[in-house]
Amino acid sequence: MSTDHWSATEKKIARRAFDAAYGREIAAIMEELRRKVGGMKSAKDLWQIEDFLRERRDEVDWKYDYRYSQLIYVFSILHHQGFLLEADLAGLSADKIEAVKHTGDCFRR
Amino acid sequence: MSTDHWSATEKKIARRAFDAAYGREIAAIMEELRRKVGGMKSAKDLWQIEDFLRERRDEVDWKYDYRYSQLIYVFSILHHQGFLLEADLAGLSADKIEAVKHTGDCFRR
Repeated sequence: MSTDHWSATEKKIARRAFDAAYGREIAAIMEELRRKVGGMKSAKDLWQIEDFLRERRDEVDWKYDYRYSQLIYVFSILHHQGFLLEADLAGLSADKIEAVKHTGDCFRR
Repeated sequence: MSTDHWSATEKKIARRAFDAAYGREIAAIMEELRRKVGGMKSAKDLWQIEDFLRERRDEVDWKYDYRYSQLIYVFSILHHQGFLLEADLAGLSADKIEAVKHTGDCFRR
């Protein structure tokens, strides 16, 4: 089985994993936003929050690309960042799981 | 006295009025941000907060233009929006105060 072919079952698992990672990342951004707003005192703080949100949104928009041709790469980034757990991948072919983990390892080099 | 000429005293008053309006507007944006973040539940809410902050920042950046050639216009907008109070203008020439109020009236038509 190649990492290019996604069976119907794998597509379901991938979609669930993708959505789970997205939910975790949104929750993390919300938590950080609440923390920043809690400590906000000046106009500078306010505009830094705007910078923070814009950067997070740009990254999220770019990163969450659900094309099967990109999914190994997307998953490897999300796994490396801690938003995708290895358990989310259970049921995918071993070579896909390996590819996600291996590509993720490259970010650490 | 024309609305084009600003005496040294008027420049001090104008700067203080400008800064006071800016402070009030920033405080209002912060209050609205706290309210929105308090009620935030979904990714949609999160990105609407980003939209809100970006739009407010764009408007603030555009609006707070401290060039004496623009100041009557800037003050009239701020007065119309409630961020600049008539009391802030005390000490400016009568024609400047009238121009600020009159130009502000135009927004209501």
